[in-house]
Amino acid sequence: MRIAFVGLGNMGAPMARNLLKAGHELHLFDLNTTVLAELAELGGQIALSPRDAAAQGDLVITMLPAAAHVRSVYLNEDGVLAGIRAGTPAVDCSTIDPQTARDISAAAAKQGIDLGDAPVSGGTGGAQAGTLTFMVGATPALFATLKPVLEQMGRNIVHCGEVGTGQIAKICNNLLLGISMIGVAEAMALGDALGIDTGVLAGIINSSTGRCWSSDTYNPWPGIVETAPASRGYSGGFGAELMLKDLGLATEAAKQARQPVVLGAVAQQLYQAMSLRGDGGLDFSAIVKAYQR
Amino acid sequence: MRIAFVGLGNMGAPMARNLLKAGHELHLFDLNTTVLAELAELGGQIALSPRDAAAQGDLVITMLPAAAHVRSVYLNEDGVLAGIRAGTPAVDCSTIDPQTARDISAAAAKQGIDLGDAPVSGGTGGAQAGTLTFMVGATPALFATLKPVLEQMGRNIVHCGEVGTGQIAKICNNLLLGISMIGVAEAMALGDALGIDTGVLAGIINSSTGRCWSSDTYNPWPGIVETAPASRGYSGGFGAELMLKDLGLATEAAKQARQPVVLGAVAQQLYQAMSLRGDGGLDFSAIVKAYQR
Amino acid sequence: MRIAFVGLGNMGAPMARNLLKAGHELHLFDLNTTVLAELAELGGQIALSPRDAAAQGDLVITMLPAAAHVRSVYLNEDGVLAGIRAGTPAVDCSTIDPQTARDISAAAAKQGIDLGDAPVSGGTGGAQAGTLTFMVGATPALFATLKPVLEQMGRNIVHCGEVGTGQIAKICNNLLLGISMIGVAEAMALGDALGIDTGVLAGIINSSTGRCWSSDTYNPWPGIVETAPASRGYSGGFGAELMLKDLGLATEAAKQARQPVVLGAVAQQLYQAMSLRGDGGLDFSAIVKAYQR
Amino acid sequence: MRIAFVGLGNMGAPMARNLLKAGHELHLFDLNTTVLAELAELGGQIALSPRDAAAQGDLVITMLPAAAHVRSVYLNEDGVLAGIRAGTPAVDCSTIDPQTARDISAAAAKQGIDLGDAPVSGGTGGAQAGTLTFMVGATPALFATLKPVLEQMGRNIVHCGEVGTGQIAKICNNLLLGISMIGVAEAMALGDALGIDTGVLAGIINSSTGRCWSSDTYNPWPGIVETAPASRGYSGGFGAELMLKDLGLATEAAKQARQPVVLGAVAQQLYQAMSLRGDGGLDFSAIVKAYQR
Repeated sequence: MRIAFVGLGNMGAPMARNLLKAGHELHLFDLNTTVLAELAELGGQIALSPRDAAAQGDLVITMLPAAAHVRSVYLNEDGVLAGIRAGTPAVDCSTIDPQTARDISAAAAKQGIDLGDAPVSGGTGGAQAGTLTFMVGATPALFATLKPVLEQMGRNIVHCGEVGTGQIAKICNNLLLGISMIGVAEAMALGDALGIDTGVLAGIINSSTGRCWSSDTYNPWPGIVETAPASRGYSGGFGAELMLKDLGLATEAAKQARQPVVLGAVAQQLYQAMSLRGDGGLDFSAIVKAYQR
Repeated sequence: MRIAFVGLGNMGAPMARNLLKAGHELHLFDLNTTVLAELAELGGQIALSPRDAAAQGDLVITMLPAAAHVRSVYLNEDGVLAGIRAGTPAVDCSTIDPQTARDISAAAAKQGIDLGDAPVSGGTGGAQAGTLTFMVGATPALFATLKPVLEQMGRNIVHCGEVGTGQIAKICNNLLLGISMIGVAEAMALGDALGIDTGVLAGIINSSTGRCWSSDTYNPWPGIVETAPASRGYSGGFGAELMLKDLGLATEAAKQARQPVVLGAVAQQLYQAMSLRGDGGLDFSAIVKAYQR
Repeated sequence: MRIAFVGLGNMGAPMARNLLKAGHELHLFDLNTTVLAELAELGGQIALSPRDAAAQGDLVITMLPAAAHVRSVYLNEDGVLAGIRAGTPAVDCSTIDPQTARDISAAAAKQGIDLGDAPVSGGTGGAQAGTLTFMVGATPALFATLKPVLEQMGRNIVHCGEVGTGQIAKICNNLLLGISMIGVAEAMALGDALGIDTGVLAGIINSSTGRCWSSDTYNPWPGIVETAPASRGYSGGFGAELMLKDLGLATEAAKQARQPVVLGAVAQQLYQAMSLRGDGGLDFSAIVKAYQR
Repeated sequence: MRIAFVGLGNMGAPMARNLLKAGHELHLFDLNTTVLAELAELGGQIALSPRDAAAQGDLVITMLPAAAHVRSVYLNEDGVLAGIRAGTPAVDCSTIDPQTARDISAAAAKQGIDLGDAPVSGGTGGAQAGTLTFMVGATPALFATLKPVLEQMGRNIVHCGEVGTGQIAKICNNLLLGISMIGVAEAMALGDALGIDTGVLAGIINSSTGRCWSSDTYNPWPGIVETAPASRGYSGGFGAELMLKDLGLATEAAKQARQPVVLGAVAQQLYQAMSLRGDGGLDFSAIVKAYQR
């Protein structure tokens, strides 16, 4: 299949690599020429612009850092919508606000383009291993088209509903994730301060009603879960800056919808304070440091 | 075994009933004479005071509403410590602050009594079915003595460490539980407000990093988990007033330890506001009502 | 003086009226033709577009609801910058985020236009009475030009620094105002719940370290300050929706700057919840209702 | 007048000194013998216990660190109530929870003693200068008796209502103070981060709706108010640990009354985090450090 792929950063590059491995013909664009060269060696073809890439694809995939990039990559003069042929399916895998996802899709629809959103979870590790989860907002027909391709980059391909719902699913999940992680940090640090063994405490929580992914799989207290970032100095994993970005998207979407998210807003502030302290580069579970003695 | 059992409320009465069924000789005390009469019909013997009950037991078990009751039941003139024989093991199953648990145990130790704490989770349903979890703070020797008896009232008997750690485990778990539940409520309500199907959203969360007991087993959104209180008008379950009590214990213990619990304190406030609105009698998952349109 | 005035809503219309009274020649634009007709009767001249108005003014003043309107009024094809002559001073009195203020000013500067920001406080009452406070972000030269004109609409004309600082001053003040108001609400309601006379409590606070404008001038408890909205059913005054808008601007600007505003974020959430309950049309001091029995 | 004075710490000692200067006969007790010796040199008479002091006074004044001390000083075997003659007026100037104030007063009333509460504000400086504010909870008759004596230690003697209301007034004021101070810290730090001159910003706030004691008299930003602790490295003033104590009393009283204090609870947490960072010995305005770059 001829695929246009725009955005080859920490996530996009390994995703494109998996598509090349699967035998597709890729037309690639990014501002970073080094990564373009690397992917060209693997058989990818270098495009001169998002427009140029889109013009040569039977499917367009984009993976960008934020909403502003998505807007310009699709809507600029040399953007995707300037080159794409009517009827070509497209999907944006960036994590952005649901409203922008809908706006861009509406702009595409005017040209006869069915554009969906499919943000991912799983991090750079999942992108490399091809085990990402894709949360897809798309028409049923578009979802059917996208699914086999996304399966070459991920393991779980979930249809969330119409366009925008992929973004909604992701920010709602990550809102809860940010809150849960801080909750685990507070519970573990309180237990430690009061004098219970933290391993025993984690064991009790994990077999009780406090059980959650942040406790049983990714516990922020060092030494509880061997494979978690907490047990290797909070390196790797899901960076605090990315959590801060997602909590920003969630609180902003909540503001637009006049929907209170009280704990979510406090969580966002606590990650902002962590970033201010200079710890934004650590895994997001390092929020526990704010509670440790 | 001859067991003194003091405190026969919603939890204590079914626990005592299970011990009677198991063949023990129970010496019972409570201010409520109706429940005493009921248990006497099942073979229990009525004592005239905590002291009287304690004097006739080879083991003392207490199950009381709050720290003030525990203090008076143990320390008053006609209290447990006035009647108990040196060397008799004792355990308090009430949920109270860890410091009071340690204080009472220290007072008991002066008389040669080994007193542990063993707060429970599982609610009145677990008490009736004999499937409670006991979080036990006790010396290894006392734990060994208590375990077979507690197993006649519960399924999981966990040794958390020395006296007081049972309480610590319980309040840390419930601190996290209160935070998680509000987190799930905020995430579900935000998703609903933004336009995703709540069943789809719950499915994604439950197979992703937001996964937690409050989402996959006890989801606060009506219709998501059939067996959850949300699907039967928030009746039964774990009352909001009890959650408020436990969050109060957690924030108070944190204050004593100078340990921040920022989300925990906000969670406590949100349950306080729920109580003020008159919803304290509902299941604690009804906190979601504060977020629904 | 020939003044172009764009944006004639609840604030802009009375401001324009004051300029007409002061003898200026006004070229007016708004989408609302009723208000245009009213001001035409008072001697104003109706323009066909922001461009048309700007073309005829020796000074341009705009007063719009939000950043999106400011962008389009200045930057659209028939916008202010399409009509204004080089060298014409301009000022935007809208309350928007500082970054947009700077962006629009930078766009104007490319055409040789010195554009400042001058958000106001004082509400519709102050706009009618000509007693507004203007917080001006502008070059010293522009400030000198604007001051005499702004004095015909307001009483305090404060130079805050370069462009954007007017907005910064306003959102920082209103961030503190929102927090203080909730603080007063919590203190008064707590005192009431604990059993002190609220009039006595307010008197003590107002002569002590809790003293603030929200307590001594605008107390949210009914009957404390006769002239405050609380004493007339929370009608009039500064609407809760406007406070919510300003807290939204403050938390968003904080997010851009990676600056924590923890209480500010919680305050924003509490106003969001108030809006969700349908009380957004009341004066912002009605937040106290969330705390009353 | 013969006055029994118990509790001669940082506050009590200078208060007692002012009463000695005013010519009263003082019967003094404290566990610290050094301060007793110092006051004996100034003419005070040393008592052997609170009971002994109380037995020799026509008025009893106590000034203690916390509720536990108040309980033991009044209720112990050698406490005030064991020595005081029926009909002797008494006042406790400690800052404690309103319920304990009421409980002790009720215990005193059983012996025919009229005991009021009169917590102070003004700090050690006010105690030395005799310029304290006394917030008095007492019967009208007791207030009339106390007023002339309290005026020898303070400047403002405010009758707040019946016993307990002095404590209520103080904790409500300090709840608001803690919230306001953090509000000012957030507003000043946000303004600084966004690029406005902090002196200009403070000036605008102080003549606008954000105006409060924490901004115009005690601004936490260095260099704004010359006489404020912020301008001398946060030394002296009102220690963060004392603010944390008062916020603890306020949130605890709120919990007893089922009264939400959402911002108050967050403020308490932020002071707890400040204490954990080791800054509890600084003036409470140093909370701004958590927001500075």
